[in-house]
Amino acid sequence: MAKARDSIAILGGTGDQGLGLALRFARAGRTVVIGSRKLDRALRAVEEVRQAVPDADVSGFENPEATRGAPIVIVSVPFEHTAGTVKAIRSELESGQLLVSMAVPLATAVGDGAVRTVGIWQGSCAELVQSLAPDGVQVVSAFQNVSAHRLRDLENAVECDVVISGAKAARERVMELCSLVPGLRGVDGGPLANARIVEQITALLIGMNARYKLPEGLGIRFTGLPD
Amino acid sequence: MAKARDSIAILGGTGDQGLGLALRFARAGRTVVIGSRKLDRALRAVEEVRQAVPDADVSGFENPEATRGAPIVIVSVPFEHTAGTVKAIRSELESGQLLVSMAVPLATAVGDGAVRTVGIWQGSCAELVQSLAPDGVQVVSAFQNVSAHRLRDLENAVECDVVISGAKAARERVMELCSLVPGLRGVDGGPLANARIVEQITALLIGMNARYKLPEGLGIRFTGLPD
Amino acid sequence: MAKARDSIAILGGTGDQGLGLALRFARAGRTVVIGSRKLDRALRAVEEVRQAVPDADVSGFENPEATRGAPIVIVSVPFEHTAGTVKAIRSELESGQLLVSMAVPLATAVGDGAVRTVGIWQGSCAELVQSLAPDGVQVVSAFQNVSAHRLRDLENAVECDVVISGAKAARERVMELCSLVPGLRGVDGGPLANARIVEQITALLIGMNARYKLPEGLGIRFTGLPD
Amino acid sequence: MAKARDSIAILGGTGDQGLGLALRFARAGRTVVIGSRKLDRALRAVEEVRQAVPDADVSGFENPEATRGAPIVIVSVPFEHTAGTVKAIRSELESGQLLVSMAVPLATAVGDGAVRTVGIWQGSCAELVQSLAPDGVQVVSAFQNVSAHRLRDLENAVECDVVISGAKAARERVMELCSLVPGLRGVDGGPLANARIVEQITALLIGMNARYKLPEGLGIRFTGLPD
Repeated sequence: MAKARDSIAILGGTGDQGLGLALRFARAGRTVVIGSRKLDRALRAVEEVRQAVPDADVSGFENPEATRGAPIVIVSVPFEHTAGTVKAIRSELESGQLLVSMAVPLATAVGDGAVRTVGIWQGSCAELVQSLAPDGVQVVSAFQNVSAHRLRDLENAVECDVVISGAKAARERVMELCSLVPGLRGVDGGPLANARIVEQITALLIGMNARYKLPEGLGIRFTGLPD
Repeated sequence: MAKARDSIAILGGTGDQGLGLALRFARAGRTVVIGSRKLDRALRAVEEVRQAVPDADVSGFENPEATRGAPIVIVSVPFEHTAGTVKAIRSELESGQLLVSMAVPLATAVGDGAVRTVGIWQGSCAELVQSLAPDGVQVVSAFQNVSAHRLRDLENAVECDVVISGAKAARERVMELCSLVPGLRGVDGGPLANARIVEQITALLIGMNARYKLPEGLGIRFTGLPD
Repeated sequence: MAKARDSIAILGGTGDQGLGLALRFARAGRTVVIGSRKLDRALRAVEEVRQAVPDADVSGFENPEATRGAPIVIVSVPFEHTAGTVKAIRSELESGQLLVSMAVPLATAVGDGAVRTVGIWQGSCAELVQSLAPDGVQVVSAFQNVSAHRLRDLENAVECDVVISGAKAARERVMELCSLVPGLRGVDGGPLANARIVEQITALLIGMNARYKLPEGLGIRFTGLPD
Repeated sequence: MAKARDSIAILGGTGDQGLGLALRFARAGRTVVIGSRKLDRALRAVEEVRQAVPDADVSGFENPEATRGAPIVIVSVPFEHTAGTVKAIRSELESGQLLVSMAVPLATAVGDGAVRTVGIWQGSCAELVQSLAPDGVQVVSAFQNVSAHRLRDLENAVECDVVISGAKAARERVMELCSLVPGLRGVDGGPLANARIVEQITALLIGMNARYKLPEGLGIRFTGLPD
């Protein structure tokens, strides 16, 4: 399959957050490729995108095929499936492709609650992904703190900053993705290791959403940034 | 079911390490209760114990029933099932029962390798278990570094020290369990929080077993301890 | 010394962030007590407050004396001195007093950089403080992410949310402190253990301040909170 | 200064553990170079070595000069000074030199107790050292769990295994160092990241030394290793 030069593959694009990104990027006119472990689930998500965004340029595949040739591959599966997903697509990944890690090591992965996290040997989910990726494939951490509900609510802006961590040139490619979504602002999160902080913030937000009874989900903004 | 006053319940007694402990405690003449999520698996493990130790006082139940009334309950399921197992038996646990945590948060739980670990919000698997246990149920950390292979090899001593962490009186009850197994020596590991160190050692041993090609598994000894 | 019923002691009130809080609370008409390891340094800080807020109700003492009888004691010393400071005031602390932990375990404490942190055995600086405090003294985590520069700039609002973690009643007392400072908003950060996430955010902000060249310092806001 | 081809520099060779290693290596006939922040302290340690080992080939320098040209440089300063020491010698380090990290991030570094540790952003003290070392300088983790008291007691063997972590060729050079000391056995601890486990063990041993009242210090042995 020949992918569009600027296509965005979203593995786990059938989940809440992945589907939300798919909707937003499709709405912005980008070519979106939805990946899933099961083809039929990917195709159902494609249908959902088309219903919300009738002129969407969207297609669905199993994860390895979705990965092949996509310049940017967003890994949007739950944390407990992230390592397995990266291993499954590994042989498809080629130098120059960008892998975006957005999972959060919530303690639900080990039977504990979503307001707590587990510590990752490599430092963060994003660094774990980097450790599993082939040489030449850069990993960027982003999108962890964006509410799935707000992403999917196409009538409203998302109102959230996205902290982007990774190598500089790679960060900038994801910065550009953020600019496609009304209300999202990419901010420079420095080296990939900072993902360990950004990922933790999600667990804090989940707790705050529960305490404040906000099913639509909080966002985060940095004040004092230059325009 | 009325349990013997000194019975030892081993949840996950169908796994390698749990079955090894069951064999050793049965051989030492103690009443052993094997728990499993599935009754038939528990009963198969009971048969295995009886074949190796013909006069074994051993019975099998689903985990909650195995837990009921047993003064000491050893949670010997893999780490990723430990929280779920404790939640499943929680309503059976009563003040005074002792819960022994022996799982290790290996990174296999999140799709990474067994020579690495994940960090636990509460500090360790044992402290996670304590956070899930009802008030009055004390948790002790022990047995993580004992080779399953050596436990099951009844003809030979195990040659391993067992670092026992938890409240003092509870530690002593587990110290006594160690003395039932030839070659095991319980050592005073201090407060439960030290489990976070002891659990890590297992990942180190797993790596050393692989590097030295020792399928039967290394043990650990402290030198300079008084007799 | 008899403290005012609503006085606020700020240990390390001679540092940038502590002095900033002192200025703001004094400006709001509260009784402020500045503590330091050295009396003369405390008195110099008192002078600074009086120059900026001529009618300030402010006094200075060595830390233990500053602590005595103050309903709220803010520990605003650098992280590497936090444990020592708490030990030094321990004998003065009485049940009912509130201890506010605001230090961040930056890796500068161990000779590494301020954009990285060290992990704390107890989970966070705030939990370390709790482990050192006498029974009955509640610890609340707050103020870590508030820019010292913006606190001290009395002409402008601070524009920062303060995540407050700790026991509920204690949290509310600190929530009220936030309302004294224009632009600060206290948000419910749940149990004290969440301080481990909030403290990390400071290291992220320090890195962003450097990358964006913002000596006055970023703040953080949560979007989507009810008014 | 021209160093002997097989000289061993020990920075912090004036401390208990560093001096112990100096004594043992000198006794084994190796050229030992003791480094310290202060020349006079280094020279005093040299005198101590000469008194215990009259024919010792030992000299003393400030840390940077001690480092220059030594094929193996052991950083034996307390953890809180390790980063600073490595920065101070950095300009002297050349590709091919081996840096041995033996400090343990005990929580004393942040005012808490020696039976607890702090977590290091890079994973361990050894990995922090690696992050500070120039390219081409390999870091090996070793010696953390060796009792200073037993090292200095030249009449007796040490009875301790040394877990050596780092790159393979570098590990073997440290393995050979262990063989110089009666009772020490080097074991293959795999990649440098495993230092994070080995360093923790020291805190466990310190607690056990206190509980068992063993001022001379415990050691650790692995059972089941091939001869």
